Amino acid sequence: MADWPATLDGARALDAADPLSAFRERFVIADPALIYLDGNSLGRLPRATAGRLATVVEEEWGERLVRGWGEGWFEAPQRIGGKLAGLLGATADEVVLADSTSVNLFKLALAALLARPERRVVVTDDLNFPSDLYVLESAARLAGGAVRVVPSADGIHGPVEALAAALDGDTALLSLSHTVFKSGYTYDMAALTAAAHRAGAPALWDLSHSAGAVAVDLNGAAADLAVGCTYKYLNGGPGAPAFLYVRRDLQAALANPISGWIGRRDPFDFALDYAPAPGIGRFLTGTPPILSLSAVEPGVEMLLEAGMERLRERSLRLSEYLIARWQARLEPLGFRLNSPRDPARRGSHVSLGHADGLRVNLALIHDQQVLPDFRRPDNIRLGIAPLYNTFADIHTAVERLRAVVVERLYERYDATGLLVT
Amino acid sequence: MADWPATLDGARALDAADPLSAFRERFVIADPALIYLDGNSLGRLPRATAGRLATVVEEEWGERLVRGWGEGWFEAPQRIGGKLAGLLGATADEVVLADSTSVNLFKLALAALLARPERRVVVTDDLNFPSDLYVLESAARLAGGAVRVVPSADGIHGPVEALAAALDGDTALLSLSHTVFKSGYTYDMAALTAAAHRAGAPALWDLSHSAGAVAVDLNGAAADLAVGCTYKYLNGGPGAPAFLYVRRDLQAALANPISGWIGRRDPFDFALDYAPAPGIGRFLTGTPPILSLSAVEPGVEMLLEAGMERLRERSLRLSEYLIARWQARLEPLGFRLNSPRDPARRGSHVSLGHADGLRVNLALIHDQQVLPDFRRPDNIRLGIAPLYNTFADIHTAVERLRAVVVERLYERYDATGLLVT
Repeated sequence: MADWPATLDGARALDAADPLSAFRERFVIADPALIYLDGNSLGRLPRATAGRLATVVEEEWGERLVRGWGEGWFEAPQRIGGKLAGLLGATADEVVLADSTSVNLFKLALAALLARPERRVVVTDDLNFPSDLYVLESAARLAGGAVRVVPSADGIHGPVEALAAALDGDTALLSLSHTVFKSGYTYDMAALTAAAHRAGAPALWDLSHSAGAVAVDLNGAAADLAVGCTYKYLNGGPGAPAFLYVRRDLQAALANPISGWIGRRDPFDFALDYAPAPGIGRFLTGTPPILSLSAVEPGVEMLLEAGMERLRERSLRLSEYLIARWQARLEPLGFRLNSPRDPARRGSHVSLGHADGLRVNLALIHDQQVLPDFRRPDNIRLGIAPLYNTFADIHTAVERLRAVVVERLYERYDATGLLVT
Repeated sequence: MADWPATLDGARALDAADPLSAFRERFVIADPALIYLDGNSLGRLPRATAGRLATVVEEEWGERLVRGWGEGWFEAPQRIGGKLAGLLGATADEVVLADSTSVNLFKLALAALLARPERRVVVTDDLNFPSDLYVLESAARLAGGAVRVVPSADGIHGPVEALAAALDGDTALLSLSHTVFKSGYTYDMAALTAAAHRAGAPALWDLSHSAGAVAVDLNGAAADLAVGCTYKYLNGGPGAPAFLYVRRDLQAALANPISGWIGRRDPFDFALDYAPAPGIGRFLTGTPPILSLSAVEPGVEMLLEAGMERLRERSLRLSEYLIARWQARLEPLGFRLNSPRDPARRGSHVSLGHADGLRVNLALIHDQQVLPDFRRPDNIRLGIAPLYNTFADIHTAVERLRAVVVERLYERYDATGLLVT
């Protein structure tokens, strides 16, 4: 990859040649001067979404009123989940949209624990999103079990061997973030799932930082369970409903531990006793959130149109280009690569460490019109959304990062984010 | 109330004289010929809501992107909850919007059970919304407890004395729907809460069928816990986020059993261990659903403007008028009043039973442009939303109900809802 172009014009030429570049126009770009590298936290607004939501609000809710439930609302979690399944290597009857990632993780982890009461331990790592650790702890406590957090040796790479060694006959569940939120390390899902299966335990993957940017093959990996959010690379909007996946052959054996009416067989019977719905629907709980669900659908449709393989390919090219630019322009200034160098083990964001990372990040946002995010202790996290980020974005962001340090712009900020007067 | 007018003109005169009638114009009324009596299932769309949502989507998400979290999104559950508290007799720091009613019920019921492990039984009744029974069963099972369902003697009135008798030193929680979904019976919250307290147990109220139409005084009743939905009389939209209430002095003693990052103190520390946020915020779990939350706010603001006492007064007048019209026009045709006659014990919907109720309801919807809903075995449930339903609505609906039976229009339908050919 020594032949990456060094100039902004070169970056623009790469954009011009890329078959996915046209998708950028299908997003609202309110401020073209802003370089947005935080699509791994909140994806941009697809142009189609505002119109779709207005239709649902004004025509469906406003005009059809409660009749909407019989005219497509009731099936929305399965309908949109079925489309999303196409991005995740799952079949349409294995994915639904529901609740938040945390609630879905709670439901599936606790379901797995309760299905195997003779096994007590949930195995995870310290790279997992902290909320996942809290929720796994909640679920384990209720089931009389415990969580074993395997540490990463370097804070960047997943502790693959230590995890495999931790899996044993007392393991009820292996639960990991497929792509970890800080370093962007991506696990080999098939290998870790196989390791869990060898120990007789199911594997539950949090796909929040993968879905829509990293090719995921849940069925190919024989993954048992998965959850994830839709507001990052899926562009579903702030706090959009999350998803959950349960492999088809496991659905009948697992009970939803929060058994609400929407997960019941024939909910409008209003019977006093619970009987689970057949299939993936049993993992639903409360009334589906129609407005926010409908905002998820256009983004998913657009990603399907682009195609997951092409998205991953573009994400990797953009990431490799970013790393090449880091090496040429930022490493000499003291920036470290806090993400894996191996593209096969990296998701779609790249974390750069710097001794003054927090202040550099503040200057980048406030003075340089570049919007990444920051994760302690020192990570400037650059998210690459393959549908709208460009080679030119990356070239410019790297040059502005350089300027912040060379021109010592970060010295205007203190560590609390305030301007130093 | 013998002096209710008998004519449609008389009903219109009542509307013209009512100080709240002007609020109807602040809702989208797409089809003025439709009599909508299902606001107890899904409230109408407030005119302000579409605009508010468009602002949040296009200006906040579209333009501010992830910065929105620092510009009001993060506080939305508390901000809107604080406003809603004003309709519920609670203080602003006792209510948040979160999750679905079922998930909130699960969280609070399980929190109460785990706080008192020496007590095992959740007491409820068979008038409760079935989903509440399923969820209470879920929570009780996890805590090693059980649910005791006290039957109503007549299927209409709450079994107040039997409930009081069921409360004892083994009671971990009393959990009831304040207004029950089928008959519209409304419990005396203060009296039942006091009965629970005498047994040493907290009371958890589901306010779904009360909030926004029945005056609720959570603090005045010394209620401990409450949940409810926002898509009925609060007009928050299909599947809108639910709310939960925890009395201030109980907040520190109860632990959220689904401990996600938004309920953590300083979630952006990303610490690996959970420490609950102070106050009501600890009962949050996942990322707040900003789009659907923002759709709840305009409806709540409008109800606050109308004032809960005036809303309840209007709801009662409309209900009493409906019952007077039933007595004059429908009782002679075999319609029964399946709701309490005492207005103090009735919420804001009235259920009318009829031997051919399901078919009558179908004819009403398909031939008569009246939209109530139906609850087995024979209830035609007429919801009265005091902000937009009118005396004229009720007069017309009763006459159309009459026509369906007198003209035998219902004979065109069979019990499955199909037209009889």
